[in-house]
Amino acid sequence: MAENIKSEEIFKEFKEHSISEFFRKNSQMLGYSGKTRSLTTIVHEYVTNSLDACEEAGILPEIEVVIKLLAENKYSIKVRDNGPGIPSKHVGKVFATVLAGTKFHRYIQQRGQQGIGASGCTLFAKITTGKPITIKSVNEKESYECNVDLDIKSNKPLISEMKKIESDVRGTEVFGEFGEIKYENSDHGVYEYLKRTALSNPHATIKLLDPEGKETVFIRAVNEMPKRPKEVKPHPLGIDTNDLIEFAHRSHEKKLSLFLIETFSRMTQGKIAEIKAIAPEINFDIEPAKMQWSDSEKLVKAFKQIKWMIPELDALSTIGEKQIEIAIKNILNPKFLSVIERKPKVFRGGIPFIVESGIAYGGESGKEISQIDKDGNKIEAEGNVLRFANKVPLLFDGSNCAITEAIKGIQWKRYGINNFDEEPVSIFVNVSSVYVPYSGVGKQAIAKEDDLIEEIRLAVMDCGRILQRYLNGVKSMHLQETRYKTIMRYISQLSKDLSEITNMNNKEIENSLKILIEKKYSKLFGENADMASDQKNNELQEQEATVDESEEAE
Amino acid sequence: MAENIKSEEIFKEFKEHSISEFFRKNSQMLGYSGKTRSLTTIVHEYVTNSLDACEEAGILPEIEVVIKLLAENKYSIKVRDNGPGIPSKHVGKVFATVLAGTKFHRYIQQRGQQGIGASGCTLFAKITTGKPITIKSVNEKESYECNVDLDIKSNKPLISEMKKIESDVRGTEVFGEFGEIKYENSDHGVYEYLKRTALSNPHATIKLLDPEGKETVFIRAVNEMPKRPKEVKPHPLGIDTNDLIEFAHRSHEKKLSLFLIETFSRMTQGKIAEIKAIAPEINFDIEPAKMQWSDSEKLVKAFKQIKWMIPELDALSTIGEKQIEIAIKNILNPKFLSVIERKPKVFRGGIPFIVESGIAYGGESGKEISQIDKDGNKIEAEGNVLRFANKVPLLFDGSNCAITEAIKGIQWKRYGINNFDEEPVSIFVNVSSVYVPYSGVGKQAIAKEDDLIEEIRLAVMDCGRILQRYLNGVKSMHLQETRYKTIMRYISQLSKDLSEITNMNNKEIENSLKILIEKKYSKLFGENADMASDQKNNELQEQEATVDESEEAE
Repeated sequence: MAENIKSEEIFKEFKEHSISEFFRKNSQMLGYSGKTRSLTTIVHEYVTNSLDACEEAGILPEIEVVIKLLAENKYSIKVRDNGPGIPSKHVGKVFATVLAGTKFHRYIQQRGQQGIGASGCTLFAKITTGKPITIKSVNEKESYECNVDLDIKSNKPLISEMKKIESDVRGTEVFGEFGEIKYENSDHGVYEYLKRTALSNPHATIKLLDPEGKETVFIRAVNEMPKRPKEVKPHPLGIDTNDLIEFAHRSHEKKLSLFLIETFSRMTQGKIAEIKAIAPEINFDIEPAKMQWSDSEKLVKAFKQIKWMIPELDALSTIGEKQIEIAIKNILNPKFLSVIERKPKVFRGGIPFIVESGIAYGGESGKEISQIDKDGNKIEAEGNVLRFANKVPLLFDGSNCAITEAIKGIQWKRYGINNFDEEPVSIFVNVSSVYVPYSGVGKQAIAKEDDLIEEIRLAVMDCGRILQRYLNGVKSMHLQETRYKTIMRYISQLSKDLSEITNMNNKEIENSLKILIEKKYSKLFGENADMASDQKNNELQEQEATVDESEEAE
Repeated sequence: MAENIKSEEIFKEFKEHSISEFFRKNSQMLGYSGKTRSLTTIVHEYVTNSLDACEEAGILPEIEVVIKLLAENKYSIKVRDNGPGIPSKHVGKVFATVLAGTKFHRYIQQRGQQGIGASGCTLFAKITTGKPITIKSVNEKESYECNVDLDIKSNKPLISEMKKIESDVRGTEVFGEFGEIKYENSDHGVYEYLKRTALSNPHATIKLLDPEGKETVFIRAVNEMPKRPKEVKPHPLGIDTNDLIEFAHRSHEKKLSLFLIETFSRMTQGKIAEIKAIAPEINFDIEPAKMQWSDSEKLVKAFKQIKWMIPELDALSTIGEKQIEIAIKNILNPKFLSVIERKPKVFRGGIPFIVESGIAYGGESGKEISQIDKDGNKIEAEGNVLRFANKVPLLFDGSNCAITEAIKGIQWKRYGINNFDEEPVSIFVNVSSVYVPYSGVGKQAIAKEDDLIEEIRLAVMDCGRILQRYLNGVKSMHLQETRYKTIMRYISQLSKDLSEITNMNNKEIENSLKILIEKKYSKLFGENADMASDQKNNELQEQEATVDESEEAE
């Protein structure tokens, strides 16, 4: 065997690539796989950005999505919002630099967090139609329109035809032409996506004009802004050695101790003293910029041995129980509904998150989801699970998601559901966090981290126990009803017999017996009906579901 | 509601990030999620690179993996190969620039294709232990050692302590210290990974020294190099409008027609004439560098209307039926085994790929795979499916993979398997292509593209039909055996009766009857035994499995 090929020859082709080139070649990783999914991905990216922009500016969102058929598998998409607008000097990077954005590095809950989405759309327009996208934007200082293209080799924007426009209505409109996409009314299509977005963002009005000219408006269900998430300092338990070194080396503080207090949440002089007691070898008077890896490692270890207050939760913004109830009733019209918001928890030691969960039963709940879209593409059956992360619906890659995993692990029979896939039941889960660990760049699934799975499981089980009481109530009602009917059948004979014995009037006895029985049973029905809703609050105060507890109610 | 927050304020935090920063924050996307998986990912990246380097240089690989425990969840990992070595001027970028490499842009089958893996390891070492990795490499000109670190902000390498070493044994050794990992003997651990790597690379010798000091050597099963894949020109059906524009604008040819012939496989003057007939408006004399999008679009459209020879297949390198048979027998010791290599096919119109498949039955086949690793992490049950892409084992994210999808869709009862998850059956699938469309950056699952799923399904069904004959044979043998025993039981009575009637010797009659029956049955057994293997060739020449065909055999 000849070792005739030299390393030099092999490496003569060595090249460096831009992130745009990478995603241009692997666009499936961004969600561009399958025509229906690709169209949904584009709408998802733009709408997500619009919602974030409105939220940050404190504006109740009004978003309009217009999709027009241009040719086979070729559409124009326009998304317009009433947000704060984009300064013209940033517009290129927002729409045509992968990994640029305001969101990536901030410790605040937002829908977007990667700085990839909108640039990915520009990339996809370019590789499927060769056309730039067009932006119109009005902010507090400017009203302009321009074309934005992406230079794939350099990952830099190319802006052309920049001009002033006459408009003072604030907001941003993005327009693009895309190929290799298809508008479908499937469960993975744009309509379903926007419906779910409306469900999880009841403060937004979302309008869709579909390629057939049909207009749908999801009108806002609530007129107040959700609590605005605040940017908070990171919690000492949520950072690793490398984070700490990076923060320290960027710091201009003179002393390590001051740097720690300034940088982290819940860090006080008292806590510094506690850390000193655990790691006396660390010099807290050195400049943080000079801190060594070994010190950082010791500090992170010490952090873990101290009791901390839980992270500040101002950074988190949930949908809210009331809003979820209104939204689910609107869409699924269920016979029974329980919604709960859990207390905040942390994962990876210190990243705060909150799970909201709901179970709907009856009505439109638990509808079948088609397994194959009209392209003939197999799509994953999401069953009857409505997944959300930071209020954004997740329509794809369900089998890879912590939410699906958590729900799969629940023994539904305990909660009165004998066949989860076939009964009219829908599960709603929204995970809110300053950092959602998505399993892929396309952000359609939450990584299966244990802390997350466990907390989602507990949330769904909380709702499950309330459902169980309801289903028991329904069963019990059926039982009572049967008994009532049986007894009623005997009444006329009983009345006759009693009348003979007592010499009282037959009809009189029958009537008073009837009243007696009806009274008893109506009381029973009443009790049952109350039980389901009354016990909700008690339930929520119980710690966790235990096997005994749920079996006791059977 | 106050529109009090200005777009300028929102955008004051606008930043650009390096791809390293992105993966530093989202390391789970590279496969760094869970301690066991993270360790396997590191070994996977280094071993993959070693195999590619040896293959390219025409060297039979000898790879040594040494893992040592340093502290809880902290290990050193050393991977050494006998490959061609790395020129020192490239060593930094190979190990510390995400998206740099020799593989990304070439039209050739390789295990790596992203230029992410090895740099991802350096990144992971840095964020978990703060240490650089150490490289020793000997190529035809140099023998050196150095430390390589990655500057996350700039995605650039930092090389230190470069020095000459005394060695003339060619090859590369990489050594690093990593935290947040754990060595486990689970089905997702390093041992299983290397076992499967040996299975799909029978020309390699792979040695593992585990943290307990136990040495395992997977000795090469074949002594010849696999057919080396060649770099080929892209096929006209495998490119899109944007590819064509990019190729054209990079070209120095003077005429469009010459550029097309030079750039693409199967493109001739004759084909140009055919294209001209379809799209007479295109000027084939213009400089390709000046070609417009609309022309490119028309050309791609025209390409699709012409009959082409299939793509050149020199670019593909399979494992080979014989090699797979040897390897599976070694590892699973099955009672029955069928392996087939399908004919090359194309997906996305023109990207060639080949599927190899095997079914093993009995022996160690179909062993249970634990659902929870010892970290307590839930891991996906891969059932009894051995997935490979370009000879690299895929251990994670099975539910997201085209191979799993294809196998899930098969009606196993048709093939004599009543309960796929519980019977002793293992399925082997290897997909070879110049471009494998992975569903994520971590490259553990093949995207669910229809053409791929269908071809994998057909491959597995091919094997399934052979298995079915075998299982029918086994059933039939059991039946014959039962009959044989029953008949034998009657022989002594029958002999006695015949002896009385004919006055012949009882024992003589019994013996001749026995001989008669044994002869008949041994012939039957023989026929059955042959059937399974004989019919293999006929089977393979049949077109595809049809429902009728497989039912007919039931």
